[in-house]
Amino acid sequence: MPKLFMFEKPQGMRDTLPELYHLKSRVKQSVSKEVQQWGYEPVETPTVEFNETVGTASAILDQQLFKLLDQQGNTLVLRPDMTAPIARIAASTMKGAERPLRLTYDAPVFRAQQYEGGRPAEFEQVGVELIGDESSSADAEVISLMISSLKQAEVRSYQVAVGHVGFVNALLNEVLGNESRAQEFRRYLYEKNYVGFRKAVDELPLSSLDKRRLYELLRLKGGAEVVENAKTLTESDEGKAALAQLEQLLDILNDYGINEDVMIDLNLVMHMSYYTGTVFEAYSEGLGYPLGGGGRYDQLLSKFHHPEPATGFGLRVDRLTEALGVSKQRITSDICLIFSGERRKEAMEQARTLRSEGQTVVIQEITGIKNVDAYSAQFQEVRYFIGSNGNGGTSS
Amino acid sequence: MPKLFMFEKPQGMRDTLPELYHLKSRVKQSVSKEVQQWGYEPVETPTVEFNETVGTASAILDQQLFKLLDQQGNTLVLRPDMTAPIARIAASTMKGAERPLRLTYDAPVFRAQQYEGGRPAEFEQVGVELIGDESSSADAEVISLMISSLKQAEVRSYQVAVGHVGFVNALLNEVLGNESRAQEFRRYLYEKNYVGFRKAVDELPLSSLDKRRLYELLRLKGGAEVVENAKTLTESDEGKAALAQLEQLLDILNDYGINEDVMIDLNLVMHMSYYTGTVFEAYSEGLGYPLGGGGRYDQLLSKFHHPEPATGFGLRVDRLTEALGVSKQRITSDICLIFSGERRKEAMEQARTLRSEGQTVVIQEITGIKNVDAYSAQFQEVRYFIGSNGNGGTSS
Repeated sequence: MPKLFMFEKPQGMRDTLPELYHLKSRVKQSVSKEVQQWGYEPVETPTVEFNETVGTASAILDQQLFKLLDQQGNTLVLRPDMTAPIARIAASTMKGAERPLRLTYDAPVFRAQQYEGGRPAEFEQVGVELIGDESSSADAEVISLMISSLKQAEVRSYQVAVGHVGFVNALLNEVLGNESRAQEFRRYLYEKNYVGFRKAVDELPLSSLDKRRLYELLRLKGGAEVVENAKTLTESDEGKAALAQLEQLLDILNDYGINEDVMIDLNLVMHMSYYTGTVFEAYSEGLGYPLGGGGRYDQLLSKFHHPEPATGFGLRVDRLTEALGVSKQRITSDICLIFSGERRKEAMEQARTLRSEGQTVVIQEITGIKNVDAYSAQFQEVRYFIGSNGNGGTSS
Repeated sequence: MPKLFMFEKPQGMRDTLPELYHLKSRVKQSVSKEVQQWGYEPVETPTVEFNETVGTASAILDQQLFKLLDQQGNTLVLRPDMTAPIARIAASTMKGAERPLRLTYDAPVFRAQQYEGGRPAEFEQVGVELIGDESSSADAEVISLMISSLKQAEVRSYQVAVGHVGFVNALLNEVLGNESRAQEFRRYLYEKNYVGFRKAVDELPLSSLDKRRLYELLRLKGGAEVVENAKTLTESDEGKAALAQLEQLLDILNDYGINEDVMIDLNLVMHMSYYTGTVFEAYSEGLGYPLGGGGRYDQLLSKFHHPEPATGFGLRVDRLTEALGVSKQRITSDICLIFSGERRKEAMEQARTLRSEGQTVVIQEITGIKNVDAYSAQFQEVRYFIGSNGNGGTSS
């Protein structure tokens, strides 16, 4: 193994310098304020969990997990998502809390990257979980809250695609008849590999009618008419029930007044295998990947021996800041007081007064500065407390 | 290995539920606001670093590091402190930034615990690093800022002990003549094992004068007179220089007007081996362990090939909240609007209006609630939007 340079970081790991930190911080505060105003209560969970509990429940591919061993020989993981840890809390410490339970989080999650290439292995997610309510109102609430959060964060030109994995599963099972083939086609959809999807359809020994049903699935994107078209493709109770749920959801989103921001996408298949019903993803114009998304996961809580329905969303803080389209700004502190020993106390007193008025004030002994001009250039205003006479100079 | 229960967490790992989250959040915001007003710029570093870089630089005992392997076979660690990662940034990405450089952080750090027993293996630290200024003004600034942060966080009855590892090292070397013995005595001091210290002194083949110098070291705690007493114990240039620095520091702290909050403790030996000069620790009455501390580390940056002096402090957020002496409070959301489908839109509109006025508002479809009385009891006020007539009931 070649020796590392001291400044190196593990693959996919990043520093956040002050300019970006301030931008991130603003975005996170906007979203947190909004979700807490909707009554979601914040929780934190440990960075490290057992692989056997949260690791397996999380539905992240095994090779994407950061794993380590504890001193008892248990395999630990860096949490790859926040939904599974919150399900653990809801099913244990908060088992007795009234339902529906509204929780929110803002935390880094970890996914090991196989290759160099700019994908972060650690990224921050802010999101909500609404636990114990199976109604479409609950799904509509989290979608509406996600949109409201995007607005508060001042993300420009976003759109939310809404789908239903129950419908996709029903249609694939009806046409293909077995789950492993359905899985193959779900993967094409997840990868948005529509060429591969069509080719795989062509090669199957299906009736031309059934082939057409699968081709038609790829066209189920757009406005309310999509649901009508979808109805012609499915005959199963599951498929019909899924579409009825979707219609009800759209009705409620209409009442929220956010139908302008929503499109239907019945090709939407999320990578998280625990989704069972409504799924959705948020996009921003010009950004090649989703800002975040979520959906209904009615089976996850039963893995923690406390079966109950749940729905939620997660947004990626790094992508939100990217979508803001704001260039990072050099933050200049308001005022610097440069002093020499004789007038130290005077500088300290002025700093205290200015800070109490809300100003940001650096105080700096002149002997600690190598290049006074370059150092001073960082500040909006510099005041000098130098020498023994009482008149400080000011430059701004 | 016995099978784990799904609700279990790794040793030393904790959840933070809403009541504690709000308290922590208030503390962190007070401290962050204060340090940013003093001109410290916030940065974030990855949770995972290379063992060969930050791991070895961090001075945390090897068996306390959480280690894992990356796919290239490098050993990674969960960062055990924030000083080493910030030194890495200062020596690389921010190499060109003007000095002195003032940085702040607020992040979890990780230390594996050998035994069950309530010590957290992950805890949050908020702190500052002041890099590139070797003056006592810089040490005084970080001590003063730490005290100011404790005030802002509303920690009651705190005190800061200030020492100088340069003095302790000089005296031990003068008397003991070799570094491995000095190390043994430093360990007694670090463990505050004064019985062990005295016993070890008794057993050494030293002159009675030298033995008395070591016994006297244990009494060097108190006010300004301590420095005078210390002067009679050391003859080396290093020891004298250390005491001169300490006197200058106390002078400056006097100008800050915080001498009331400070005591001298020349027995103070911090666990972080990278400290080279002034060290300090903050205590709160009734709390059996320090809130945090810090000191000067003039050698650490040279490990990152960018030698420069530095000083800083770190406070533990868990202990700050504990020191607040505030019992956790059940947070009740302001208002809940319970609706049925017919009056959904009306409830949504009222929620939007109330939230825009700054209120926290939960909206909840009645079909999602199992026990309306128990659910409603969580809120200060509940308004009903039920049935088709236009008159909503209110209960508070």
